[in-house]
Amino acid sequence: MSLSMQAIIVETPGGPEALACVERPRPLPGHGEILVRVKAAGVNRPDVMQRKGKYPPPPGAPDILGLELAGIVEAAGEGATRYAPGDRVMALVAGGAYAQYAVVHETNALPVPDALSFVEAGAIPETYFTVWSNVFVRAGLRAGETILVHGGSSGIGTTAIQLAKAFGAKVLVTAGNKEKCEACRRLGADRAIHYGEEDYVQAALEATEGRGVDVILDMVGGDYIQRNLKAAAADGRIAQIAFLQGPKVALDLTPLLLKRLTLTGSTLRARPVAMKAELARDLEEKVVPLLARGEVGPIIDSVFPFAEVAAAHRRMDEGAHIGKIVLEMA
Amino acid sequence: MSLSMQAIIVETPGGPEALACVERPRPLPGHGEILVRVKAAGVNRPDVMQRKGKYPPPPGAPDILGLELAGIVEAAGEGATRYAPGDRVMALVAGGAYAQYAVVHETNALPVPDALSFVEAGAIPETYFTVWSNVFVRAGLRAGETILVHGGSSGIGTTAIQLAKAFGAKVLVTAGNKEKCEACRRLGADRAIHYGEEDYVQAALEATEGRGVDVILDMVGGDYIQRNLKAAAADGRIAQIAFLQGPKVALDLTPLLLKRLTLTGSTLRARPVAMKAELARDLEEKVVPLLARGEVGPIIDSVFPFAEVAAAHRRMDEGAHIGKIVLEMA
Repeated sequence: MSLSMQAIIVETPGGPEALACVERPRPLPGHGEILVRVKAAGVNRPDVMQRKGKYPPPPGAPDILGLELAGIVEAAGEGATRYAPGDRVMALVAGGAYAQYAVVHETNALPVPDALSFVEAGAIPETYFTVWSNVFVRAGLRAGETILVHGGSSGIGTTAIQLAKAFGAKVLVTAGNKEKCEACRRLGADRAIHYGEEDYVQAALEATEGRGVDVILDMVGGDYIQRNLKAAAADGRIAQIAFLQGPKVALDLTPLLLKRLTLTGSTLRARPVAMKAELARDLEEKVVPLLARGEVGPIIDSVFPFAEVAAAHRRMDEGAHIGKIVLEMA
Repeated sequence: MSLSMQAIIVETPGGPEALACVERPRPLPGHGEILVRVKAAGVNRPDVMQRKGKYPPPPGAPDILGLELAGIVEAAGEGATRYAPGDRVMALVAGGAYAQYAVVHETNALPVPDALSFVEAGAIPETYFTVWSNVFVRAGLRAGETILVHGGSSGIGTTAIQLAKAFGAKVLVTAGNKEKCEACRRLGADRAIHYGEEDYVQAALEATEGRGVDVILDMVGGDYIQRNLKAAAADGRIAQIAFLQGPKVALDLTPLLLKRLTLTGSTLRARPVAMKAELARDLEEKVVPLLARGEVGPIIDSVFPFAEVAAAHRRMDEGAHIGKIVLEMA
């Protein structure tokens, strides 16, 4: 059994060419952890930020890129009893997925339904944990309510559309061109707003008879924050998961009081393992069965071999993708 | 039975002299409503705002001032079965409490424990509903957590201190002078911060070993909003109930994501009757027993006869009060 492996790190922050494939010792599973032979890893925007030097790994996380993976359990550490060697798992990690092997806390892994390939499974954890946590737990979306999903054609967006529909909500999305709007509609969005051609606040109010939307999932920030306060219904909840246009804003917070709004934000990566474990339990109970029956599923934009990680990042940098970009290991 | 009554309205917005005592028809209780002979009415900051022309009554509310009262049930409208004539009640109204009679939705009233006078009971609804809704429901304060209460010596503040302590939280407050700080400590505050002499963010971090506070109750707004984001712990919740320093702010919302904060706001008056009824049920179950046993209670700053309503408002305008200002009807 070879004790080394290939892994992707950033030597000097920069463009996709900054990604370097290096030899690293294969990690050892600690208490409650499993060692997974990685078969696929999703590419996420935080990976791009980290490549640019803008999102350092949290304390204790490996410097190897990658936040989600699917693969085969190779070994279990002390106290890890849930999975056995040979099991197919998909998991969230705080780093280390762009590698041949990774260690995962067993509570942050989910079994892969038979119907899904490793590439499909590797595209799931980051967006499903994020959407579940933000849309259903933090923002408390309920059946019969209306949600506005910004960036509807992104990995997060395509997952939010499907889950919100599966749980009985009406779904509005914003997207940047006609093709992306069309993709969102095919996934079930009731209304896709081309943000370059119409004001989403106006469109959201029209689609709800002036009431506004109950939940907003936003990763844009900047001037969207004030506009979200306008588009929200009374008792609306806004979940912020990133600030692509920046976190510094001039705001009039009057609607927060008058409409009893809730503005909440979170990132997934920095959360303690126990908090991710709680989300994993929810997902296993409520969402894995939907994945197994094909009622919801990852939308794959493109798949790149491990060696072509720079091309995968270039695809994300260009911003034309619809759904997830995935790396596949040999 | 006389069909008219005396009531306080605002003829031309302005100072305390703008309050006018007029004759009005006695209101009739509608479906589910009770007619209450008012014995005491609390004076609240929204009354002052309304007097200044800055807070018009919501649609359907009377133009008579006053948001809370205690008194004796005089008659019950159709479908109102909970109280009988002669019962002592305290209640929340969307307006109309500064009068000899007022109609109240029976679900928005609470029985007055024997131990409390009408003056004491009239000082309860607005702050108890507000604190319960914001601190316990919206911000979800739990035993063992730490709360920072701004304006600790106000009606809201003195209620928040007592309820937070009664439910097992650690309480920090801000207040504007030594006397107010001392009053807060006597009510149970673990730490009272004189905001003119020390930075409350620093003080809150020190009092929590750098962790920050779990819940903040704020009515200040303005630059407090950014400072609250700094003073909050991971997974902290900030409940905004007013913007005494204004709702327009320049913010860096980064902590919202990094610390998974929740910023929520509400006003009590504009809420539907059904929402207030839900709070009333909670209060009756969990807080009225504490009031009956004297474990928590209203802090009365001063009591003015009905005819001296202008003096009561002047007292609030001056800002030296500690606890509630109450009007007493003959």
